[in-house]
Amino acid sequence: MILNLLLCLLQQIQFAEEKQEFSRFPIKAGRRSLSRSISQSSTDSYSSAASYTDSSDDETSPRDKTQINSKGTSDFCVKNIKQAEFGRHEIEIAEQEMSALISLRKRALGEKPLAGAKIVGCTHITAQTAVLIETLVALGAQCRWSACNIYSTQNEVAAALAEAGVAVFAWKGESEDDFWWCIDRCINMQGWQPNMILDDGGDLTHWVYKKYPSIFKKIRGIVEESVTGVHRLYQLSKAGKLCVPAMNVNDSVTKQKFDNLYCCRESILDGLKRTTDVMFGGKQVVVCGYGEVGKGCCAALKALGAIVYVTEIDPICALQACMDGFRVVKLNEVIRVVDMVITCTGNKNVVTRDQLDRLKNGCIVCNMGHSNTEIDVASLRTPELTWERVRSQVDHVIWPDGKRVLLLAEGRLLNLSCSTVPTFVLSITATTQALALIELYNAPEGRYKQDVYLLPKKMVTYNVKLVTIIYPFLYLGNFTGANLG
Amino acid sequence: MILNLLLCLLQQIQFAEEKQEFSRFPIKAGRRSLSRSISQSSTDSYSSAASYTDSSDDETSPRDKTQINSKGTSDFCVKNIKQAEFGRHEIEIAEQEMSALISLRKRALGEKPLAGAKIVGCTHITAQTAVLIETLVALGAQCRWSACNIYSTQNEVAAALAEAGVAVFAWKGESEDDFWWCIDRCINMQGWQPNMILDDGGDLTHWVYKKYPSIFKKIRGIVEESVTGVHRLYQLSKAGKLCVPAMNVNDSVTKQKFDNLYCCRESILDGLKRTTDVMFGGKQVVVCGYGEVGKGCCAALKALGAIVYVTEIDPICALQACMDGFRVVKLNEVIRVVDMVITCTGNKNVVTRDQLDRLKNGCIVCNMGHSNTEIDVASLRTPELTWERVRSQVDHVIWPDGKRVLLLAEGRLLNLSCSTVPTFVLSITATTQALALIELYNAPEGRYKQDVYLLPKKMVTYNVKLVTIIYPFLYLGNFTGANLG
Amino acid sequence: MILNLLLCLLQQIQFAEEKQEFSRFPIKAGRRSLSRSISQSSTDSYSSAASYTDSSDDETSPRDKTQINSKGTSDFCVKNIKQAEFGRHEIEIAEQEMSALISLRKRALGEKPLAGAKIVGCTHITAQTAVLIETLVALGAQCRWSACNIYSTQNEVAAALAEAGVAVFAWKGESEDDFWWCIDRCINMQGWQPNMILDDGGDLTHWVYKKYPSIFKKIRGIVEESVTGVHRLYQLSKAGKLCVPAMNVNDSVTKQKFDNLYCCRESILDGLKRTTDVMFGGKQVVVCGYGEVGKGCCAALKALGAIVYVTEIDPICALQACMDGFRVVKLNEVIRVVDMVITCTGNKNVVTRDQLDRLKNGCIVCNMGHSNTEIDVASLRTPELTWERVRSQVDHVIWPDGKRVLLLAEGRLLNLSCSTVPTFVLSITATTQALALIELYNAPEGRYKQDVYLLPKKMVTYNVKLVTIIYPFLYLGNFTGANLG
Amino acid sequence: MILNLLLCLLQQIQFAEEKQEFSRFPIKAGRRSLSRSISQSSTDSYSSAASYTDSSDDETSPRDKTQINSKGTSDFCVKNIKQAEFGRHEIEIAEQEMSALISLRKRALGEKPLAGAKIVGCTHITAQTAVLIETLVALGAQCRWSACNIYSTQNEVAAALAEAGVAVFAWKGESEDDFWWCIDRCINMQGWQPNMILDDGGDLTHWVYKKYPSIFKKIRGIVEESVTGVHRLYQLSKAGKLCVPAMNVNDSVTKQKFDNLYCCRESILDGLKRTTDVMFGGKQVVVCGYGEVGKGCCAALKALGAIVYVTEIDPICALQACMDGFRVVKLNEVIRVVDMVITCTGNKNVVTRDQLDRLKNGCIVCNMGHSNTEIDVASLRTPELTWERVRSQVDHVIWPDGKRVLLLAEGRLLNLSCSTVPTFVLSITATTQALALIELYNAPEGRYKQDVYLLPKKMVTYNVKLVTIIYPFLYLGNFTGANLG
Repeated sequence: MILNLLLCLLQQIQFAEEKQEFSRFPIKAGRRSLSRSISQSSTDSYSSAASYTDSSDDETSPRDKTQINSKGTSDFCVKNIKQAEFGRHEIEIAEQEMSALISLRKRALGEKPLAGAKIVGCTHITAQTAVLIETLVALGAQCRWSACNIYSTQNEVAAALAEAGVAVFAWKGESEDDFWWCIDRCINMQGWQPNMILDDGGDLTHWVYKKYPSIFKKIRGIVEESVTGVHRLYQLSKAGKLCVPAMNVNDSVTKQKFDNLYCCRESILDGLKRTTDVMFGGKQVVVCGYGEVGKGCCAALKALGAIVYVTEIDPICALQACMDGFRVVKLNEVIRVVDMVITCTGNKNVVTRDQLDRLKNGCIVCNMGHSNTEIDVASLRTPELTWERVRSQVDHVIWPDGKRVLLLAEGRLLNLSCSTVPTFVLSITATTQALALIELYNAPEGRYKQDVYLLPKKMVTYNVKLVTIIYPFLYLGNFTGANLG
Repeated sequence: MILNLLLCLLQQIQFAEEKQEFSRFPIKAGRRSLSRSISQSSTDSYSSAASYTDSSDDETSPRDKTQINSKGTSDFCVKNIKQAEFGRHEIEIAEQEMSALISLRKRALGEKPLAGAKIVGCTHITAQTAVLIETLVALGAQCRWSACNIYSTQNEVAAALAEAGVAVFAWKGESEDDFWWCIDRCINMQGWQPNMILDDGGDLTHWVYKKYPSIFKKIRGIVEESVTGVHRLYQLSKAGKLCVPAMNVNDSVTKQKFDNLYCCRESILDGLKRTTDVMFGGKQVVVCGYGEVGKGCCAALKALGAIVYVTEIDPICALQACMDGFRVVKLNEVIRVVDMVITCTGNKNVVTRDQLDRLKNGCIVCNMGHSNTEIDVASLRTPELTWERVRSQVDHVIWPDGKRVLLLAEGRLLNLSCSTVPTFVLSITATTQALALIELYNAPEGRYKQDVYLLPKKMVTYNVKLVTIIYPFLYLGNFTGANLG
Repeated sequence: MILNLLLCLLQQIQFAEEKQEFSRFPIKAGRRSLSRSISQSSTDSYSSAASYTDSSDDETSPRDKTQINSKGTSDFCVKNIKQAEFGRHEIEIAEQEMSALISLRKRALGEKPLAGAKIVGCTHITAQTAVLIETLVALGAQCRWSACNIYSTQNEVAAALAEAGVAVFAWKGESEDDFWWCIDRCINMQGWQPNMILDDGGDLTHWVYKKYPSIFKKIRGIVEESVTGVHRLYQLSKAGKLCVPAMNVNDSVTKQKFDNLYCCRESILDGLKRTTDVMFGGKQVVVCGYGEVGKGCCAALKALGAIVYVTEIDPICALQACMDGFRVVKLNEVIRVVDMVITCTGNKNVVTRDQLDRLKNGCIVCNMGHSNTEIDVASLRTPELTWERVRSQVDHVIWPDGKRVLLLAEGRLLNLSCSTVPTFVLSITATTQALALIELYNAPEGRYKQDVYLLPKKMVTYNVKLVTIIYPFLYLGNFTGANLG
Repeated sequence: MILNLLLCLLQQIQFAEEKQEFSRFPIKAGRRSLSRSISQSSTDSYSSAASYTDSSDDETSPRDKTQINSKGTSDFCVKNIKQAEFGRHEIEIAEQEMSALISLRKRALGEKPLAGAKIVGCTHITAQTAVLIETLVALGAQCRWSACNIYSTQNEVAAALAEAGVAVFAWKGESEDDFWWCIDRCINMQGWQPNMILDDGGDLTHWVYKKYPSIFKKIRGIVEESVTGVHRLYQLSKAGKLCVPAMNVNDSVTKQKFDNLYCCRESILDGLKRTTDVMFGGKQVVVCGYGEVGKGCCAALKALGAIVYVTEIDPICALQACMDGFRVVKLNEVIRVVDMVITCTGNKNVVTRDQLDRLKNGCIVCNMGHSNTEIDVASLRTPELTWERVRSQVDHVIWPDGKRVLLLAEGRLLNLSCSTVPTFVLSITATTQALALIELYNAPEGRYKQDVYLLPKKMVTYNVKLVTIIYPFLYLGNFTGANLG
């Protein structure tokens, strides 16, 4: 064990050297590209509530302020502790849709399966993750938390967590330096020795590898949610540098099945409405790509009366699109007539400048795919085109002849930038994270090696049952309470 | 003619006496009940744009400020003329979806069919009505405008109109006194003799009847959009007190067919998402009423994976619901299991306190019908229930046992309070209003008597063609340009 | 009363003279054009049942045979009384879907509301009408029945009726002379004085006017189901020649609402499958006309994965098609690419020879509209085209270059020729007919004049309730048994 | 090679001993259970065409008749060679929907990729397989063919093949002895040495193993289509007894993806309509199982207005059903109220006698799943229940109290018994079979060992492209002709 650890330490040194590009990644490309960036409009949705506005000391960095919660604690760093009450409302709304976690709290309350767990977490700080964090606390864990994205923190939710006694270090609009400072504050604290890591994007894990490798002696496991973070863990594993067991939450069947098809089916509509108030009925739309995301987008738009075209290069998917009633076309065939272009292929430059030039006036262009580069947005930053920011997340790109194209979220993921991810879907992921922590924390020594694991099948089934507890008729139906747990 | 007018004057005196309840109506019940109140969230949607915030002089009444636009004019009264640029963006976005009006501008530009028209208008002041007003101006009219609702004005749009030279008197949050002062400023101005009225709700018409009946000598007609206003005009007509021809825009076939079914199909989703971020897939929903609005709601929710029940007392509509695949139930049968209750019956107390008591925790309750009283919200204002305002338009009503019900818009119309009406649908109404004004203004004397009229059929057809010009394939299809006009 | 009757008699003489063209109509155009001709394939569907086949005496006219049923009666004329058992099965299957009539039987059994009624009927003789006839008998009526169409009689159903004691005169493949002979045998019989007429197409009524006008003295009313028959009755009424009250069943709201939209939604699929076994998924289809029939066809085809185009000249309907997600086109735009052309406009020559020339190989062409001439089938009967009858109701029309077009039912109504009308829909009409007979027979003298009436509203409501009794959940829902009757 | 063959021979002896139960299988359980049995109603659909009826010599076994085609050949054995013309029509109709094979004929015509191939085939003899056989001939093969099912042969199609010179031995209603005699005649013929096997169900392969193992010396490969046959091949392979390469067509991605979901979506409707003429709108239906077949059934029924319930024991599938808007229930919850019960689980006794006892009068019960035993039909064969055969494939099972349940196809697969499989779907399989034959026949020695293979990926892609050639817009779209082949 000790030998093993020493080997680990040795490797970290190499890792820190080699992986410059990994540590630079968040800086250059922006945190957003690392993982989910939570909707701007979501956080904006309550900013209109007159009663609280960020007061004049907004300009002061939270790091320079001294704040104390009502219990006299100051072991946190948030924008404004006074916003706690508003944040609590947001958390309560989220709880309505996250019955799975609430139910888990109740079921596991007696036995406290996380008693003794000391978790450092680094995720988006939103109402939904707050429900997760408070569930972990209810199950017996101590938590210290930072944000995995410099923009996505809901300040008032962070305040509510701080008020409730969670050591949270996060605010909206952190600098690069702030970002690492917050992470560091979660790990490095007198008398605190974390034994679990919950990460989203791999930055926290990276920081521990780089700065505090000795901590891995006590860590029982890492739970990672993002594509990027999971990819990194597999690389470490392949290189023999993974020091502790890790659980890949991203590829759990529940996340894959529901995040894509069902979530996108709803968020495409929501994202378009919130940004443009467009009417779907009668609109001509081309959806590029007919994978799970494309299928969800097409189904929703068709249902609301849009005329939908599909572009697809995989013959099987193309035939599916046919059989589902969509006309499969080349983008160039329809580029001049469509009212909306939606990309979800996972490829680069699916919509080129040349095609953007041929769009009709008023056409909406947006991206639902994983890549930021499906629409060649960079090509639009040329002198002859005027950009006008007409709303948050909405740019009018204006051609010399006056033609306007409505570009949403600058080509970034529409559903993360301009809609809210339905709480119910986040609930699935959050429950998976909680179960993964419980599993790793309680596993008998030796069950998990220094490798990356998926959630065991019985936990997946339990997960689905927890998540679907929201459907009582399901349980009246085929599942009996007896099966749960 | 003069005799007629005298008769009119005489009648107005009676009218003013009798109709106390009419004039009081806006005061007591609030302006919202009179007619459409534009979405709070719509106006909020750009308030997050950092660059303009209502500055500290917000507290000063616009009536006490002196403002001048860039052309040196001060014949207007808005919140803040400096917001004009932001308002112009909103108008430009709206123009993208209102091709009908833009097309009308182009077609009628040469002949200026409203040359000489002096229009007083009283409508919501939104980006969409701004497009209408600027179209009227482009067709030759002079306009003076006030708001028909004390809350619905988009301040920056009013600023943009003022900056463009329209005499607009409106801001968000007018007092009762402000409301009538604004209307008065539109009518009563040195050297201004209006000859057309465009009204939404009947207040402007009422004020003219009450204060300036002599104006009717010159008025060629009234165009009225709202149910309430139209109802009032028919009463006047029946009583023989209508002094000028009036055009009923509310009952035009285009408005009826599209506002209800197609508009509600989209706004039910939008309204629920913006307020609650709820996931539709798998939810159990009961929709009360299967008229056009109910049909739209049911179709949209079913399409996104909700399990929809319908209550309906008309046997024909009930059978339609059956044939469309919905289980027709009594509300009491499902009240304990549903996740959402949506009313659209047009009746009172469709959802009673007794039924609200039996809802499950987290149930969402909202109204899409014409009446504010479909849900017995009044019955919820009792001491044992706690109300918590968790977001704009969202209240948690909390029972003593901790059960929370999410009440949206306090039982008022969800789609007007919490979503945006798709611009395209507003475009239909706005075009109808413009055409009605053109028709009345240009009609040969004697064609229209002192009565209430619907838009003549050929204008309706022309209207549809203008509106659908947004679908070029439609014109490639069956309509030829030659038919237009 | 007597005076009135004399006037009637006088008018009939004129009528008989004038209306040569009416009496000739069935002869020249064939009975099919008069009214519904029941599906060939329906009657064929059991002809494969090995156990009964029309035996060698098939060639003998039923008029030349002497047949006796098991009770010793011979007051009927059918193809083969021995087929009665097979017909009884068909009737029993139909009864499963016609709960409304069965329910009416039970409800009205005690009071026998048709006791004393002597009904002459002339309708299609099918399993469904058999259920109607036997219901009338159960309610106390005596019936004599003939067929309204020389092809549509289900021989074994006629046999089953004869076996059960109904005086039925009908077989498949009657000659023109047979047709009138059968009708005559229903009216003209020793000791039989009919007092009610149930007609479908107006031929029975015509025959009574022409041959036995004195019968009208005793007739309490006529119930007519077909468009043609109703049209004729209105003409008589307008001309002052209608001698008795008549009930127009064709225009009842239940028939209009359900026959078109819901019935066609199912029968378009059924008709196409039975004739061509075509797969709908991925097919490109153009539907000409977006009225109720077109809406039903489009909805069904879209739902099964076809890509549907619509042609429509009415702007409102065209906009509805748009909003429902269909591309509105000119037929010429898509004529070369579609896999199916379906007409439902009610107009003539919607698909011309020129367009048929441009169809692609294998294209299916059929008609769902009221007119037989929507497709210019006549233009295809030219020497250069070869017709090949490949199945019942399916012709391959072959162009000189080898191209084949699949013409269904020679352009006649697909759903009547090639599918079955769902029994449930027929149930609605049959119940309406029964209720209309009850109403006219029991109405106090003077309630109905010599005019054409629609079913009174309370009967319509009762009708819907009877029809929907098949949906028990509907009654658990909003209707209570107490309301029924 | 010779050694190998000897080993093979040795093994066959064992095989023949061991596999008694395999060879008995077709005898006891009936051929239908082995593989697809083509629709009764399909073959009946043209039996109404007056011009040909099976004449009086129907009773004579084809084996006892001497028939000669118009070219003077008598190397075939069919019911009646005179039906050839009618069969040719059926084949021509099928060709309209099988463009993939037609296209393959054209593309490969020059090179004749099957020149020299001598294929023995054993499949259903239908219009669709006729198109396949004639394609193989066009590509250069010689063919001898028998039927894989004693009931499924379309006699007139067999006649048309015989007339065209194919050595076909098959008729509808073969005895067990006839069945093996026909197979034998295909293999064992003077001067004929087959080198390819195309099998559907494994009987032909079995016969060769048993009677003519030496033939395997020359056989280049076996192409097998059915689940049962493929299963058998894998067993042989595992046991080391497979003597030649085999291609598993059943598990090709195209077949799996399209046969289940898309095919069942259409055939559930078709099967129910043809047997019962039921109206779907408003009906309550329970679908047991939400796999691909269940998804297809549910989607179709929902689209046509049925109210659909789902039973499902897999939590993931259950959650999908939820998200797709279906109420997930236990069968017992809804058994008393539903109008139809459809099984597609793959399990046994999903619907028990106890549940059948509780069904309401008129309920339709049918099976779309792979197993014949999903409905416990055996339990209905008890003295107190009366069975009435009311139509081909439709039994009324009558309870002592008069309740009738409509059992379709005696619980066998509805879509194979009572509907037609869309020709387009069969086209996919047939093309796969043709490509598999070409691949195995032309593969360089050594590429395929004595094992079971799937079609190589490039052939799959080519297959999809051939199949989808029916959608020209697809090719205008993403595929270019250049890619094809």
